[in-house]
Amino acid sequence: MTCVIGVDLGGTKTAAGVVSSSGEVLMSDTIPTLNRAGGQAILDATAALISGLVARAADAGHTVSGVGIGSAGVIDASAGTVVSATDAIRGWAGTALVSGLHSRLGLPVRAVNDVHAHALGEAWLGAAAESSSSLLVAFGTGVGGSFVLDGAALLGHRYVGGHVGHFASPLAVVDGVPLPCVCGSAGHVEAVASGPAIHESFLRFEGSVAEATDTRGVFKLAQGTHDGGAAGTAARLAVELGARAAGQAVGGLINILDPETVVISGGLADAGEPWWKPMEAALRQELLAPLSAVPVVRATLGNSAAIVGAAKLVLS
Amino acid sequence: MTCVIGVDLGGTKTAAGVVSSSGEVLMSDTIPTLNRAGGQAILDATAALISGLVARAADAGHTVSGVGIGSAGVIDASAGTVVSATDAIRGWAGTALVSGLHSRLGLPVRAVNDVHAHALGEAWLGAAAESSSSLLVAFGTGVGGSFVLDGAALLGHRYVGGHVGHFASPLAVVDGVPLPCVCGSAGHVEAVASGPAIHESFLRFEGSVAEATDTRGVFKLAQGTHDGGAAGTAARLAVELGARAAGQAVGGLINILDPETVVISGGLADAGEPWWKPMEAALRQELLAPLSAVPVVRATLGNSAAIVGAAKLVLS
Repeated sequence: MTCVIGVDLGGTKTAAGVVSSSGEVLMSDTIPTLNRAGGQAILDATAALISGLVARAADAGHTVSGVGIGSAGVIDASAGTVVSATDAIRGWAGTALVSGLHSRLGLPVRAVNDVHAHALGEAWLGAAAESSSSLLVAFGTGVGGSFVLDGAALLGHRYVGGHVGHFASPLAVVDGVPLPCVCGSAGHVEAVASGPAIHESFLRFEGSVAEATDTRGVFKLAQGTHDGGAAGTAARLAVELGARAAGQAVGGLINILDPETVVISGGLADAGEPWWKPMEAALRQELLAPLSAVPVVRATLGNSAAIVGAAKLVLS
Repeated sequence: MTCVIGVDLGGTKTAAGVVSSSGEVLMSDTIPTLNRAGGQAILDATAALISGLVARAADAGHTVSGVGIGSAGVIDASAGTVVSATDAIRGWAGTALVSGLHSRLGLPVRAVNDVHAHALGEAWLGAAAESSSSLLVAFGTGVGGSFVLDGAALLGHRYVGGHVGHFASPLAVVDGVPLPCVCGSAGHVEAVASGPAIHESFLRFEGSVAEATDTRGVFKLAQGTHDGGAAGTAARLAVELGARAAGQAVGGLINILDPETVVISGGLADAGEPWWKPMEAALRQELLAPLSAVPVVRATLGNSAAIVGAAKLVLS
């Protein structure tokens, strides 16, 4: 059988899979991303990961015809280069991703930003599989999104499209002062709705690092069966604030983009009802009347979404 | 020469023009929209307006091959019907716009929402003529927009796409209370950045109706050569608040959509520097670094934008 390789290259790990033309992940492998070693070292390691899978596929009688890669950073999908990237992957910006892998592997390669790959996967085989258009928004360490129309992600003229965490949120203003955002501006959705922002809100609500060292700890406190005293209250308020900001933002985007289906993903979406309920309530409060029945669903493909979405780039 | 008719059907007037294949408006005519008479009466009047132009075109040796119409309301561009409309045009919702005109005229008819028609016109021949993608946002009595990619407007799955006035704005919150929005929700961009909202801000800043009866009056006070005392100050603050909210909103949208060109239109965009300067400053403050050079320009086609944009529907 002819297959392709889909790769999900993130800040901490790089996962790849052999994907059939129907989207089945036949075999997969994961390595740590060499996020301090620079672009060429990452390309070497990624090529080795892919070559290993090509060999395993051959042993099973499969031929690999191409490689699709979803990568962290702003990816010029036409030139196949990394336009910019955060410090999470040092030296990644400027890397010739597509030509670098092509020269190492001899296979056709296509690349796109990882959130777009994620959305393409959910639109192909996941939560939005039957929809002609979908908006995916991921809430985790950051806030990112992608609008997929007729199987193609809206990449933007400079490949920056989908930065849905970077617009002003009324809930990212505390005592009249906009919260600083990682982008350098302030008052953005990401500054109140990301995972780290929820931990910061917890501390602002007079929770302490001793009570919750990170976002996971805040959720644990918020979900505790006993009320948890002041720390429990601070945790519940922080989770609810982040969730409301998330829902308000997505609701406004729905009024603008009118997607057939809305898919919410990321670590916060997986954290259960204490986040999902206030998120969806805030979202629905924003909607214009003709949009009130829009389906808002959790992503279903988990970690394989970006792998199959990236694979689709070289299948279609 | 073979031409088409483009129609711009708004809440107060309906304008139509004979448009050549290159987009030249050869002749035009305008009637008041019968906004209290119901859908069939509006169709009758619009068909008569079009027939008059078809006859004039014939006299000049031109044949009309089709009719494109941009109409107020949510327009199902596939079925050719008015899905919903505000009370500005009573009885318009539910009207079979395309079949109603087709049966009256015997010509092929296509329809789209008027803001999308406006954006299609600017994208074809106006401020975004050389751009592969553009975001147009109109600030006037309401706030509306349209994202045009490769010559097609993003209409949305339920044809509601482009309602860019209806997402949460930090500047639409006064003393912790979100300002009511015409859509029934609160705290939206339109509630602080529309023309009427600027007049309301002026009154909130202790300007009086005697000093400015409407938005135009507020701008007159704000632009006055002498400082205008307390009323002048209130007017300048109100204009600046609306402009900052407008710019902040558009800036956030640019981070999400990454259009090649941004076009700002509507009565407020035409009101000069006191609005444009704070609008553009607020807009640029929101932008992610790779978007900092995005062109933000005023619409250039004026009232003919929607006519030529609607005409394009039946030309392409």
